[in-house]
Amino acid sequence: MPTVSLSLGKRSYDVLVANGLLESVGYHVNRLRMEGKAALISDSNVYPLYGEQVKQSLEEAGFGVSTHIFPAGEQSKNLQTVEMLADEMIAAGHDRSSFVVALGGGVVGDMAGFLASIYYRGIPFVQIPTSVMALVDSSVGGKTAVDVAGGKNLLGAFHQPRMVLADPMTLMSLPTRVLREGMAEMVKHAAIRKPEMLLTLRELASELDLGFSLNTLQHLPDIIAANIEIKARVVEADEKETQGVRAFLNFGHTLGHGIEASVPYGELLHGEVVSLGMRAALYLSRKRSGLSARAEKELLSTLQALELPLQLPAEVNIEKALAKVATDKKFVGGAIRFVLLAGAGKPIVSTEVTQEDMKEALLHLTTPVSL
Amino acid sequence: MPTVSLSLGKRSYDVLVANGLLESVGYHVNRLRMEGKAALISDSNVYPLYGEQVKQSLEEAGFGVSTHIFPAGEQSKNLQTVEMLADEMIAAGHDRSSFVVALGGGVVGDMAGFLASIYYRGIPFVQIPTSVMALVDSSVGGKTAVDVAGGKNLLGAFHQPRMVLADPMTLMSLPTRVLREGMAEMVKHAAIRKPEMLLTLRELASELDLGFSLNTLQHLPDIIAANIEIKARVVEADEKETQGVRAFLNFGHTLGHGIEASVPYGELLHGEVVSLGMRAALYLSRKRSGLSARAEKELLSTLQALELPLQLPAEVNIEKALAKVATDKKFVGGAIRFVLLAGAGKPIVSTEVTQEDMKEALLHLTTPVSL
Repeated sequence: MPTVSLSLGKRSYDVLVANGLLESVGYHVNRLRMEGKAALISDSNVYPLYGEQVKQSLEEAGFGVSTHIFPAGEQSKNLQTVEMLADEMIAAGHDRSSFVVALGGGVVGDMAGFLASIYYRGIPFVQIPTSVMALVDSSVGGKTAVDVAGGKNLLGAFHQPRMVLADPMTLMSLPTRVLREGMAEMVKHAAIRKPEMLLTLRELASELDLGFSLNTLQHLPDIIAANIEIKARVVEADEKETQGVRAFLNFGHTLGHGIEASVPYGELLHGEVVSLGMRAALYLSRKRSGLSARAEKELLSTLQALELPLQLPAEVNIEKALAKVATDKKFVGGAIRFVLLAGAGKPIVSTEVTQEDMKEALLHLTTPVSL
Repeated sequence: MPTVSLSLGKRSYDVLVANGLLESVGYHVNRLRMEGKAALISDSNVYPLYGEQVKQSLEEAGFGVSTHIFPAGEQSKNLQTVEMLADEMIAAGHDRSSFVVALGGGVVGDMAGFLASIYYRGIPFVQIPTSVMALVDSSVGGKTAVDVAGGKNLLGAFHQPRMVLADPMTLMSLPTRVLREGMAEMVKHAAIRKPEMLLTLRELASELDLGFSLNTLQHLPDIIAANIEIKARVVEADEKETQGVRAFLNFGHTLGHGIEASVPYGELLHGEVVSLGMRAALYLSRKRSGLSARAEKELLSTLQALELPLQLPAEVNIEKALAKVATDKKFVGGAIRFVLLAGAGKPIVSTEVTQEDMKEALLHLTTPVSL
């Protein structure tokens, strides 16, 4: 099966990608020679779909398993939920020899990973992502976090999983809008590292117009593995985001996060604001870093083919979005670090993007796209 | 001035020990080439004593400083306080280029260090310990944590400080009982690594009977540095408590924690239960690992000279204390790892101590000491 290995010294691990992988979770965890009990953490959406299957697979492999389910949604991603889950784990008898299995999308992975990083000062964890964004992005790389009142992901840890089990079949249960929004991160990967993948993504887009077919399912492992490969190489080069390389993964995210934080939670999905943020970043890349009109156009047409939003909804207040950008983690010492493209697949981190530039780019998002 | 260096690769740092060091905090932090703003975290007991002095020293060295003060006491050491402090830091404009200065005893160091470890996924921090236990033990070694309902220190991180500034003069403000309880950790260090220090500690004990003198103050930096040296070498050998060596620092702590958790918080101070726990561990060392009566006697007489408790207060329920031991972190995979002495300065980790042994040792604590 497609396997992507991350080489991070003692923290190295494999990402396995295969349809039906959920059936053999216990077998693969067993191969890691973990000996303690498993705390299976999931949310109220995902557990009913796959929880029992994963629990059973772990139990058949000889692991004791306790299950810990929290209400689905970003509003659960906070220290209160972490404490509730920790209390449950303590009550279930987990000690430092236990491990966490995170089954779900980005929220589950971020929060269960964070809990694993601080439980008894750190226990191992396994990621089982069940959304596009989690499969191709957040489950790989060890970033874990919770939100606080002041902003998203402001408290967290770098804690690499011991293994990621990526089963594309889990995507079949996703609503279309959620399936499509996750693909924004694939477009991002293509934009910063692999422009030739854009054609594949447009083909995938036209397949999806007809619904989730067997054909799609056959293609997905390779497409997902290709995306994980991109993420993995970036993480290897800059595990803790200190070298500037990992910042490339923020392409489209700076203004995207500002837009996301300026509307009530859930109105715009993460991938949708990343799509908008990428259009804004492409505009600034044309202005500031010499991106060609052609490269911009190919990226925009791919986003359009995936039916991702490119025009700012009327309810987004530009001033509010800009104010939200200011509390984002992309700042270092007060200066914003903005990811631009100098060309297709050629990202740079710019410290020259001004407040006025950002405002201009957001205003640009109010105009229709003409391709 | 006495300086203890910890060699931990990229996480190496120095512990400076000198009377009056609080005056030059800004100078020493400046030498670390930190550039961001400082978040000075302290508690309601310590800030009024030393807070303004430290703030001023940092400001004179050119650092922007925000102050964050929480109510003193172990009952503050939880995720709610961490979140409150994080919200304050966000509101004060701290980003990933900022650093934390932890000014206070064990609770401040543990919690401010933990916050530093998760704020923006980790920012640097400087420890300025102001209690005996913090000076000779908890400020060095990078263990940070908060308590949860299920137990003390169950959520935390390994996050080494960038520097520790140990000023023995801060001890002059401590109540006698608090001063003495902290010295239990010094006796522990002597027990596991440096039996010849016991004489020094008994001399210190007789000095303290006359109050905190200039003579005491002159001796303290060397005594404290000698203790930090012991802790530092253990931490270097086993930074993340995976090799068994660091577990030696738990001498006296396993039953001590059980006793501590079985009475209302604050009734017995940490060092006091460690003193009781050491007497119990010495009893078990005599029974299980061949410790000589003479070695036991010298340790007990040093604890006695320091006026540390050796007999269990009547309000301690032995069954309850034993039950509390079961949720302690010294368990791995269900088996307790108990630190015993095979001789003076010769600790071992035993997995052979039974529930009955522990009960017997606690019952032994109800008898008077005869030396």
